[in-house]
Amino acid sequence: MPDPRVRALFFDVFGTLFDWRTSLIASLSAFGERTGTTCDWEALVDAWRGAYVPSMARVRAGEIAWRNLDALHAESLDDLAERFGLALGSEERAWLVRRWHALDPWPDVAAGLAHLREGYLLSTLSNGSVALLVALARRADVRFDTILCAESFRHYKPDPETYLGAAALLGCEPHEAMLVAAHNDDLHAAAALGFRTAFVARPTEYGPLQNKDFVADAGIDIAVTDLIELAAVLARG
Amino acid sequence: MPDPRVRALFFDVFGTLFDWRTSLIASLSAFGERTGTTCDWEALVDAWRGAYVPSMARVRAGEIAWRNLDALHAESLDDLAERFGLALGSEERAWLVRRWHALDPWPDVAAGLAHLREGYLLSTLSNGSVALLVALARRADVRFDTILCAESFRHYKPDPETYLGAAALLGCEPHEAMLVAAHNDDLHAAAALGFRTAFVARPTEYGPLQNKDFVADAGIDIAVTDLIELAAVLARG
Repeated sequence: MPDPRVRALFFDVFGTLFDWRTSLIASLSAFGERTGTTCDWEALVDAWRGAYVPSMARVRAGEIAWRNLDALHAESLDDLAERFGLALGSEERAWLVRRWHALDPWPDVAAGLAHLREGYLLSTLSNGSVALLVALARRADVRFDTILCAESFRHYKPDPETYLGAAALLGCEPHEAMLVAAHNDDLHAAAALGFRTAFVARPTEYGPLQNKDFVADAGIDIAVTDLIELAAVLARG
Repeated sequence: MPDPRVRALFFDVFGTLFDWRTSLIASLSAFGERTGTTCDWEALVDAWRGAYVPSMARVRAGEIAWRNLDALHAESLDDLAERFGLALGSEERAWLVRRWHALDPWPDVAAGLAHLREGYLLSTLSNGSVALLVALARRADVRFDTILCAESFRHYKPDPETYLGAAALLGCEPHEAMLVAAHNDDLHAAAALGFRTAFVARPTEYGPLQNKDFVADAGIDIAVTDLIELAAVLARG
């Protein structure tokens, strides 16, 4: 029996559902081979992801106006192109930014979400843009009941507007909503607002750079190794 | 070949995809039998739908603060309960309002949407609430790429924010978006903003009260009798 108190599961996406690092290193390396561009693509991908939190922090602090993650990715890439000595035309730049729309899911995701959807409403709750999340879901052939994200509320996580707005749009009180994420910080922010929380371990998300989020912190409701296990744990009630 | 200029199809929902009138008359009549409540349920349903446009007009004019369609449906029902002499408890009231979350689709909808999704991004673009639209899609087992609606933008159609906001969230220019609707007024509002337009005839939507929208007005791009035909017309390009 599904937990009767939880009605909707909200999923973090980058890292939790999709293996951005392996996917981007592969597609950028292929770009390098195709175009004869030499670069340390692995380092570029790590630096691009490294720019993610600081770029959103500027929006969250009101330092720059609201813009979606595709715009932030494009701006970060401009800085990195300079640092890595890449000369990118505008079409190449747009193509590279869109590689974030073409990530591969972890192997358990399609089956896990299909199982979870039998008992719960499912939505994304990501800092990605709506168009990006729609593209990822379509490419991986996974089914959410709707796509909600930072762009839906013009607030990046961990701003409370995003968590509370998402629960409200699905007609849930916070305690009827569960955030599923591979990142303790995200789960703590949701828990502080009354959400229930599930940690999914993705210990290779950051490759050799991973230095945290190997296990769930104290206070997280459920800790699992993948979505198949999450479905089993929730089914036990 | 799908029309290369259109990338996303946006669907009006009440009347265009779901037969609200037949569904509500059936569920309210069953409620009457179960509870021993006598009422002209057909007249009540028609009056409830009759309150729809005026109730949104008060929000659109700024006369009352933003509230979603579930709230407007509940307020309209209170007026009608008085007019029809119904004494409703708060649970019955909530149950009746939720009948709008349990409508049946027209018979072509599931197959038509599945076919259309092969070539296009699909989203709702309705005045219904997110929770309502999620419930309708789930119950009918139809798959949209996302759920967008008045509540996403806190503007009811035909406010331009709703059409333009929806296209932008899917990364489309207005001319890359097509509104599919059974109502000429909705299609004219979208066309004025640059959307392409498809009229689907639903001549029994309002039952004996139907007095318009039997055929597409001049200027609508495509006119069809159901979504199967729409998929065929778009496939011809």
